[in-house]
Amino acid sequence: MKQMEKIVIKQYKKPKLNSPILVGGLPGIGNIGKIAAEYLVEKLKMVKLAEIFSQYLPPQVFVTEDSLTYLVRNSLYYKRIPGKSDMVALVGDFQGSTQEGQYEMSYNILELLSKFKLSRVYTLGGYSTGKIVEHPRVLGAITDKSMMESLKSAGVQFPKGEPGGGIVGSAGIMLGLAKELFNVEGACLMGETSGYFADPRGAMEVLKVLTNLLGIEVDLADIEERSKQIEQITGKMQEDIQNKMTGGKEDLGYFG
Amino acid sequence: MKQMEKIVIKQYKKPKLNSPILVGGLPGIGNIGKIAAEYLVEKLKMVKLAEIFSQYLPPQVFVTEDSLTYLVRNSLYYKRIPGKSDMVALVGDFQGSTQEGQYEMSYNILELLSKFKLSRVYTLGGYSTGKIVEHPRVLGAITDKSMMESLKSAGVQFPKGEPGGGIVGSAGIMLGLAKELFNVEGACLMGETSGYFADPRGAMEVLKVLTNLLGIEVDLADIEERSKQIEQITGKMQEDIQNKMTGGKEDLGYFG
Amino acid sequence: MKQMEKIVIKQYKKPKLNSPILVGGLPGIGNIGKIAAEYLVEKLKMVKLAEIFSQYLPPQVFVTEDSLTYLVRNSLYYKRIPGKSDMVALVGDFQGSTQEGQYEMSYNILELLSKFKLSRVYTLGGYSTGKIVEHPRVLGAITDKSMMESLKSAGVQFPKGEPGGGIVGSAGIMLGLAKELFNVEGACLMGETSGYFADPRGAMEVLKVLTNLLGIEVDLADIEERSKQIEQITGKMQEDIQNKMTGGKEDLGYFG
Amino acid sequence: MKQMEKIVIKQYKKPKLNSPILVGGLPGIGNIGKIAAEYLVEKLKMVKLAEIFSQYLPPQVFVTEDSLTYLVRNSLYYKRIPGKSDMVALVGDFQGSTQEGQYEMSYNILELLSKFKLSRVYTLGGYSTGKIVEHPRVLGAITDKSMMESLKSAGVQFPKGEPGGGIVGSAGIMLGLAKELFNVEGACLMGETSGYFADPRGAMEVLKVLTNLLGIEVDLADIEERSKQIEQITGKMQEDIQNKMTGGKEDLGYFG
Repeated sequence: MKQMEKIVIKQYKKPKLNSPILVGGLPGIGNIGKIAAEYLVEKLKMVKLAEIFSQYLPPQVFVTEDSLTYLVRNSLYYKRIPGKSDMVALVGDFQGSTQEGQYEMSYNILELLSKFKLSRVYTLGGYSTGKIVEHPRVLGAITDKSMMESLKSAGVQFPKGEPGGGIVGSAGIMLGLAKELFNVEGACLMGETSGYFADPRGAMEVLKVLTNLLGIEVDLADIEERSKQIEQITGKMQEDIQNKMTGGKEDLGYFG
Repeated sequence: MKQMEKIVIKQYKKPKLNSPILVGGLPGIGNIGKIAAEYLVEKLKMVKLAEIFSQYLPPQVFVTEDSLTYLVRNSLYYKRIPGKSDMVALVGDFQGSTQEGQYEMSYNILELLSKFKLSRVYTLGGYSTGKIVEHPRVLGAITDKSMMESLKSAGVQFPKGEPGGGIVGSAGIMLGLAKELFNVEGACLMGETSGYFADPRGAMEVLKVLTNLLGIEVDLADIEERSKQIEQITGKMQEDIQNKMTGGKEDLGYFG
Repeated sequence: MKQMEKIVIKQYKKPKLNSPILVGGLPGIGNIGKIAAEYLVEKLKMVKLAEIFSQYLPPQVFVTEDSLTYLVRNSLYYKRIPGKSDMVALVGDFQGSTQEGQYEMSYNILELLSKFKLSRVYTLGGYSTGKIVEHPRVLGAITDKSMMESLKSAGVQFPKGEPGGGIVGSAGIMLGLAKELFNVEGACLMGETSGYFADPRGAMEVLKVLTNLLGIEVDLADIEERSKQIEQITGKMQEDIQNKMTGGKEDLGYFG
Repeated sequence: MKQMEKIVIKQYKKPKLNSPILVGGLPGIGNIGKIAAEYLVEKLKMVKLAEIFSQYLPPQVFVTEDSLTYLVRNSLYYKRIPGKSDMVALVGDFQGSTQEGQYEMSYNILELLSKFKLSRVYTLGGYSTGKIVEHPRVLGAITDKSMMESLKSAGVQFPKGEPGGGIVGSAGIMLGLAKELFNVEGACLMGETSGYFADPRGAMEVLKVLTNLLGIEVDLADIEERSKQIEQITGKMQEDIQNKMTGGKEDLGYFG
């Protein structure tokens, strides 16, 4: 028997990259990381570096509108940024689906990128507030105190004790492994989101901060448009719910 | 300690095969793949190529009517088809029962068959409609656009956006791995089925399409007979249910 | 890091054994196998051959009455039977607790014993009837048809289609692996039991058959005594339940 | 693909230790082990020997008040105790989270310490009583009968048949592996606790016994203070509950 490798990396390019920065955007809370990172890949016409297939992902193909099968995967794309650190984006259909898979997937991606002299990791994620936020903040968590000031300048907020608890999954473990096993610094950028649906608004706020940090320009018109569409839908839903609760009239408070 | 191999393949024959096509028919929705593939093995008197035992299958023996134990397994059978691609059928008691098992079982079977110059994979499955279908269609999902026309000619349908979502388990992952790791094209042939019971009718429709594709003739009289028996039983059950709901009389609509 | 072996076998003796027969008695339905095999170990003063510690067993120590810790394990004991096949008994605190563990534990034990020229495997188990059985039968399932007549002579019954379904866990997989991977024949001896409690009566019936098969004599007085005690308790419980249901009087059937 | 080691040990020091004793204090019942061991690390200003990262721990970083990420881990600290056995303390955020992880984490720590000539293991834990205990005892379980007298002298109690059943998780498996695979003796010291909350009182009682055993002095004033604070809170809670149940008055028993 010849065992399958638990993680199979198909590397398509061998570019020389300038101390690249990894931007991690896998599915998660409000899908903020995924929406933001895929937006970058599309708008910056990033080049596919590698695809990652794995037993740590569900045993599943997607079927497209045109009846084509698509084996679930994670993908790495890169973009040269002249005069600055180059960027590599991690996007994908799923996070590793077991505890072991979480560690192994993150470790292998860091291992691959360490050959390119990875200099920093930004993981993008959502911070669930449980209610709709009009002006979502972008909260930060960092591996090294020395990063704080530059992140603050870029618009990241570091309120005392927020987020409480921890960061579970790819956005957290990627930073932990980068710091402890690869000696690479990093930060998690968390856009506030209700957490109830895929949230382009939170993703847009994260993108504003991230483009500041990377020193690049990205046209945000499309994601803003999507945010507005979502807000109309969810605003309408909220109104409907309120109407149902008040019998279609405003609550006049007679019985209060 | 000497560890057991996670997958143990007992290969019984070393035939020369002509660019064989794999037909995958493991248990699944409506057991359509299993019924169809086992029907081929029986009717074509296919020859046993290999048996596959594994830790990825349940730790279980079946006991036959005659009190004989039977360790659960997957099996490969082959059939020469003069002037055409030969056929290999995959049948078995279970699919791999973990995520890892799904990948490893499929990978190992593809690996074994790649030595025979595997040329294509057809996985057979069911497409659950949630209700009884009088004239089940056979839907297709393909790894390569170039396959579509020939499959259409054989009777496979490719309605836009059907099936939505994805194909989970052996019927999906086998195609994904064939395409991405073995550079072999393939298709999933899905017979419509209610999904509530083992469904020879859906399996028969899949067989009609498949025999077209393989250029072989198989007598379908027996499976048609089984379909009719099942339809009588399920038709009777439906009638009973309806009678109970209407008090044994037709619903005359008096109170409607 | 030095990984722990998944199964650690501490072998205490290197006896020359005469084509030994393995008697497998791990916990299971009605604990019949465990009770029977441990009874043999005790009454025959069997000699400890090996102890098996493993990650496939729960991470747990028992604490004895005297406050001593005891790491959970499986153990092998042997007994020479002059002029006949020697016997090895497998007893233990748990079966392997995952699917992989079930296969690996059984495989490793068979592997170890194959060095001693293992000639046959008897696994002992319970066959759950769901109600209390006055005269429990011992049902058999065999790897090879040729074994049937000798087992029948020893008192094993092979009613058509019983047990239906399969044998899950150690009692089944041990036979399956013996047959398919070690070319060793075997049988599962299943004592009928309600399945509701540890059942020495069923174990005693299995022992009667097994001692016939092995050609040994074992004093069954103690297990008969334990059976009677249990039957008094469970008989009393049944009576109590019946009394409660009939208000302490016999059901006179007045309202029936 | 380069696989991550399942357990990564970063060893910071290579001290010569005098037949060290391991004190294991991972999270568990009442968090007694963790509270006690971390108290020792702090009060004795113990030196960090190694940190252990692993796939057997959750894929998670904590975020501190100051927004710093902290990859979850286990840590070893040591303390020289002149004229006596030196001490090594095991503390951490989690126990291994699977059965395999429990065995592997414990094994690897014992393996590392066996290079330092580990002489004994004390695991600290809680013994859940299900109700608040005014004067918690410290119960013991030992790998070797010869240890009992010295532990009794230090204040450990060994009531017949307590604790019943077994010790699950790190506190148990560490002793089992020490005894069976490393030939090292050990004991589990269990402080009685309600089991409903983190319990510094139980931890303090364990510390009293442990410091006797190790022949060291540790100022227990701080943990006593924390115990009192907790007792005030829980005492208040109990009072509140009682008041609610009796309508704010004492139960005068009028209706009894």
